[in-house]
Amino acid sequence: MEILVVGANGQIGKHLVKLIQKNDNLQAKAMIRNEEQASFFKDLGAELSIVDLEQDVDAITNAAKGVDAVVFTAGSGGHTGKDKTMMVDLDGAVKTIEAAKNANVKRFIMISSFDTRREAIQTASSSFAPYVAAKHYADEWLRNSNLDYTIIHPGLLTNDEGTGQVELGSNVERGEVPREDIASVIASSLENDTTIGKEFQVVSGTKSIKEALNALS
Amino acid sequence: MEILVVGANGQIGKHLVKLIQKNDNLQAKAMIRNEEQASFFKDLGAELSIVDLEQDVDAITNAAKGVDAVVFTAGSGGHTGKDKTMMVDLDGAVKTIEAAKNANVKRFIMISSFDTRREAIQTASSSFAPYVAAKHYADEWLRNSNLDYTIIHPGLLTNDEGTGQVELGSNVERGEVPREDIASVIASSLENDTTIGKEFQVVSGTKSIKEALNALS
Repeated sequence: MEILVVGANGQIGKHLVKLIQKNDNLQAKAMIRNEEQASFFKDLGAELSIVDLEQDVDAITNAAKGVDAVVFTAGSGGHTGKDKTMMVDLDGAVKTIEAAKNANVKRFIMISSFDTRREAIQTASSSFAPYVAAKHYADEWLRNSNLDYTIIHPGLLTNDEGTGQVELGSNVERGEVPREDIASVIASSLENDTTIGKEFQVVSGTKSIKEALNALS
Repeated sequence: MEILVVGANGQIGKHLVKLIQKNDNLQAKAMIRNEEQASFFKDLGAELSIVDLEQDVDAITNAAKGVDAVVFTAGSGGHTGKDKTMMVDLDGAVKTIEAAKNANVKRFIMISSFDTRREAIQTASSSFAPYVAAKHYADEWLRNSNLDYTIIHPGLLTNDEGTGQVELGSNVERGEVPREDIASVIASSLENDTTIGKEFQVVSGTKSIKEALNALS
């Protein structure tokens, strides 16, 4: 199963490509912005596709052709300029969804943020609200796309080592979660079709990822 | 026929409320951010609704209750901070669309920008692209809303006096158009149901607005 990782050079993306390359059933195609980011992925034996998310849908469609699933984990993270929030977190996500459809790739996993409901936009601080809005509309676009989607809403991301133990559900208490564990949740979701058409929040917890995903209703 | 004008205190909004108040068949309800903006509209005999577009959908729904049409002509114009682009041009528009639905107001007129197609996002300068993207997604949301919409795509807006003469169609050559004429196009569209479910670009031209609207296919 070949996976296009959009945002491969991000912190979650790098963990994810590593995990995919360790898994005999999976093969990563890392979508990165430029050749300078390539060596990390070449060393892992990943395929490469050099595309900037601000290019047009056709460029992303070409990257998606022939893969079995797309993971969108690109993101400005809310710390870049607000123009990037619009152009990457929203428009980049929507273009990737359209590219998956154009390339006939049905499976799509979106890394969203913890709470992207309408109420979360209203209650966010004025500096954070545009990011929440971008993720809200990107998620909404995916829900209405007819793709086999999974939307993952991680808690507060840390660089701690992954524990493989999570709490996961439609409404969990806000908390931290290592990026490495989010990468594991993505990899496990790719191999678990019960996650199709679902979305869930994830924080650190006490269940194995496999067990937690299987318990999704 | 009562019309909620969202963005009444903008330059097009002020022209529009004036035109509506001069028309015996129409009555304006000006949605403005604060009481300090009220006197202009009170002097015209318009009703008032004090709501900030960054408030929640319920606040806008309350403003829309009982009116016959909503006109969205609020906008950061691409010159404010990029956070306003997301929160007003996109999220404010979508909230207003949702408010119209909640208040059972079917008729909705959107003042968009000249070209909001996907290609226009890609070819815009990096500083203008987020604004084009915001308008693109707002228009798309409206098209999928089941409301009786009209989307007006004005050319380069000027403060020249209106001439009442326009060119109008799905694809006209880019050019200038006075804000006062755009207000006239909005007012005429409110009284012309052939504009329902349609969208068009408008620049200055040689046809009367009524004639140009009736010629829409």
